[in-house]
Amino acid sequence: MTAIELLPVHHHIDERFLVDQGKVNYWGYNTLGFFTPDSRYSSSGSLGGQVREFKAMVKTLHAAGIEVILDVVYNHTAEAGRLGPTLSFRGIDNLIYYRQMLGHLREYIDYTGCGNSLSMLHPRTLQLIMDSLRYWVQEMHVDGFRFDLAATLARGLHADARLTTFFDMIHQDPILSQVKLIAEPWDIGPGGYQVGNFPVLWAEWNGKYRDIVRRYWRGDDIQVAELAYRLTGSSDLYKHNGRRPYASINFITAHDGFTLRDLVSYNEKHNQANGEDNRDGDNHNNSWNYGVEGPTDDPEINALRARQQRNLMATLLLSQGVPMILAGDERSRTQQGNNNTYCQDNELNWFDWKLDATGREMLEFTRELIRIRNQHPAFHRRKFFQGRSIHGSHVHDVEWFGPDGQEMSDQEWGAAVVHCLGMKLNGQVMNEWDERGNVIHDDILLLLLNADADDVAFILPNGVSPGPWETQLDTATPEGDSWPPIAPGQAYPLRGRSVVLLRQASGE
Amino acid sequence: MTAIELLPVHHHIDERFLVDQGKVNYWGYNTLGFFTPDSRYSSSGSLGGQVREFKAMVKTLHAAGIEVILDVVYNHTAEAGRLGPTLSFRGIDNLIYYRQMLGHLREYIDYTGCGNSLSMLHPRTLQLIMDSLRYWVQEMHVDGFRFDLAATLARGLHADARLTTFFDMIHQDPILSQVKLIAEPWDIGPGGYQVGNFPVLWAEWNGKYRDIVRRYWRGDDIQVAELAYRLTGSSDLYKHNGRRPYASINFITAHDGFTLRDLVSYNEKHNQANGEDNRDGDNHNNSWNYGVEGPTDDPEINALRARQQRNLMATLLLSQGVPMILAGDERSRTQQGNNNTYCQDNELNWFDWKLDATGREMLEFTRELIRIRNQHPAFHRRKFFQGRSIHGSHVHDVEWFGPDGQEMSDQEWGAAVVHCLGMKLNGQVMNEWDERGNVIHDDILLLLLNADADDVAFILPNGVSPGPWETQLDTATPEGDSWPPIAPGQAYPLRGRSVVLLRQASGE
Repeated sequence: MTAIELLPVHHHIDERFLVDQGKVNYWGYNTLGFFTPDSRYSSSGSLGGQVREFKAMVKTLHAAGIEVILDVVYNHTAEAGRLGPTLSFRGIDNLIYYRQMLGHLREYIDYTGCGNSLSMLHPRTLQLIMDSLRYWVQEMHVDGFRFDLAATLARGLHADARLTTFFDMIHQDPILSQVKLIAEPWDIGPGGYQVGNFPVLWAEWNGKYRDIVRRYWRGDDIQVAELAYRLTGSSDLYKHNGRRPYASINFITAHDGFTLRDLVSYNEKHNQANGEDNRDGDNHNNSWNYGVEGPTDDPEINALRARQQRNLMATLLLSQGVPMILAGDERSRTQQGNNNTYCQDNELNWFDWKLDATGREMLEFTRELIRIRNQHPAFHRRKFFQGRSIHGSHVHDVEWFGPDGQEMSDQEWGAAVVHCLGMKLNGQVMNEWDERGNVIHDDILLLLLNADADDVAFILPNGVSPGPWETQLDTATPEGDSWPPIAPGQAYPLRGRSVVLLRQASGE
Repeated sequence: MTAIELLPVHHHIDERFLVDQGKVNYWGYNTLGFFTPDSRYSSSGSLGGQVREFKAMVKTLHAAGIEVILDVVYNHTAEAGRLGPTLSFRGIDNLIYYRQMLGHLREYIDYTGCGNSLSMLHPRTLQLIMDSLRYWVQEMHVDGFRFDLAATLARGLHADARLTTFFDMIHQDPILSQVKLIAEPWDIGPGGYQVGNFPVLWAEWNGKYRDIVRRYWRGDDIQVAELAYRLTGSSDLYKHNGRRPYASINFITAHDGFTLRDLVSYNEKHNQANGEDNRDGDNHNNSWNYGVEGPTDDPEINALRARQQRNLMATLLLSQGVPMILAGDERSRTQQGNNNTYCQDNELNWFDWKLDATGREMLEFTRELIRIRNQHPAFHRRKFFQGRSIHGSHVHDVEWFGPDGQEMSDQEWGAAVVHCLGMKLNGQVMNEWDERGNVIHDDILLLLLNADADDVAFILPNGVSPGPWETQLDTATPEGDSWPPIAPGQAYPLRGRSVVLLRQASGE
């Protein structure tokens, strides 16, 4: 683990409709003050001690080698819509801080679904946001930001989402251009889906990664080409404007939606506790309960759910790009089917630090995945694969195989339905260098993915050397029982719904 | 004197056509490097000593209470047009650093008359300029900038001059928003005349001030209302977007054009020395030689020329706004009628530090004007005049009078031809406070201007008190001979082509 991303810590207030129901805004996407940590997250009350505490927290995390990224909400404020409370900007200068309907100035344009949209059209608003960002870097020493509904920020003079001034401004800023910049690249306004459209320096929450990986493991008939792009850093989305795999923040789950465990335990959201008759929250979850909605005593279903969590976590951690894990997924946390827990200050969101057997298994497995990822630079390349001969050699940096051990044919690439495939990473031709200029080498690695329910005898391809393939990981046997080395040309007994990682031993 | 504005000090090269003629670019508007002072301005050669020397110069000037403002040229570079030398940006990335003709990419768009236009469309170019500006503030400790052909910088995606990203960027910058920002608010492109259109924080070279004041003293029939605006800080140009008199950099002469002495000594430019058959340089100088082109032995003409220089200098230093004096005008420097001395590294530009009688008189007079300006806050108000009753009193902060001692009538305001007028500044109702919150008071001052050749008996108006008017300054008698105090209602013998400043003694 290299960084934590905190849900919003700026001082926020709870919306009126929540307070009326005795609820709170537990996520905090309702900022009132852009220059202070919320005192409710502080042990020292509301007399300003939260600033000192926040700094101490950052310092402690840095000492442990962990960076701190803040989820920041500059797209709207807690002043809500026209009938919301007048707490700050509305009273200072309503017309410059917010976007109004042309010809109907008392109505706000609402790109965010939260009643108002902060206007980037006025230099003072831009300055406010930039000053706030610099404050958190220079005074609080955070390492980066995740911009909530960043498409709203990008909106310029016109209603369509233009990538404007704000990005140029950050780009030239000596402080902000040096930190991690992550966009949530969509909002609810017209033209709001901007995945792949953010500029150099910016990473993006890769919503396409989430959707395709969920659908693949659920067994949907997906385009194998699209899955291949997602596994390899989504060069189709990020390469065109000079970005690299860092631009792809891969994730399968986030605070907003099902947890990993709920993703394999529920077909439908169960948000009754939010008090809106289950109308709130996303209806498109690409989830599957495997036969029973919610908890069950059926050991087969439970085993399958645990394996699917392992498959999803393995896919996430062995994909190129930056993996983001929802806190708790490493211990099979459940929100009991609630996919929108923003107002739940209770067991639905709280962590149960006591681990049961399921949680302990998942935690051990996740640790092992992280260890493998760290050990193999081939899983976190700085550049995209080239997929072709490198430096005049006859080997490729990445190759794709079907279960017959043959490279994928054009026909197979075009086929909609490929549930089982192999990806060979040639760590010997990475074409990358470390910070001292030494060439980076890695093993020859083979990742097998099988989303089918049925087992497959996967013929292992030839590597570069004639050495046999050694099992590194098999999500079907997480306890570490594995097969002896298997020679190229022989079959690996790949179980239904499983991920296997193999490494070719040197031929000597 | 509170600041000096240096012609460009960035490292520059001489244009090919100058070198071919054995000339140099003496002004330096042909930048090659945005991060270094030109070594030719250094006594220590070209081994980097110029950086240390420049810093020492700034430090020395600061110690004398003088700020340093740099004339900076970010609108084009020394790489000139398509056939110019490839020295830096063209070779690095021609398409992002310069503006090209659409559909004809090897041709540059040339807003500057210098062969190319730096493009603000690309974030890297913006960053380059912003980094350069910050360098000169943070490392070199300069206090501000005058942006050459700033309208070019303001040009955004469209060919018309939009006030764009660049201004927003500077506005939010913690370093650059704190320094003096002065625009030369025009360029030669379409829509290039942008006087009055720069945003808050920005001051502008007030070209309209220069033109109207020259024409007034030449005796042209000008709109008296426009003269009044120019004398009072040009609120017609700068008030609309919240700026104050600081926004008006008043000037009558600058490096580009006649010196003050040449302005009253030549009807036409005399640029033969530049080697372009007198085709270069501005043909619209609003100058007048008073009977003889250039130097003369006629004592009457010489006396008139000296008085007109005093009239112009007095107008400049007693106008609201920020007066800018061309170095040398305080000592009657001549460029022998050359109004475009950019390529003259010789006596045309050099200073002759030995003063003759004419130069000494002008220097003494200018010092006296500066003393008067410093002594009277009424001449450098922070806010525009309101021209109406202030705080319920019956007095106005500014009033205008004709030679009959009566306030100017609507008819007179509408009249094209008013060559003689009086402006009364009521320093007792300034509505301003000093840095400690104390109300600023000043005297009741009366400025009389007479651009007519004929003398006028100017009836002095009533002040607030019944005290007589005391002469502070009369450009017709610069040696200090002046009239005894004159009671309101009596006439001041105002000479043809002269400026008089009076102060009302307290009535006690």
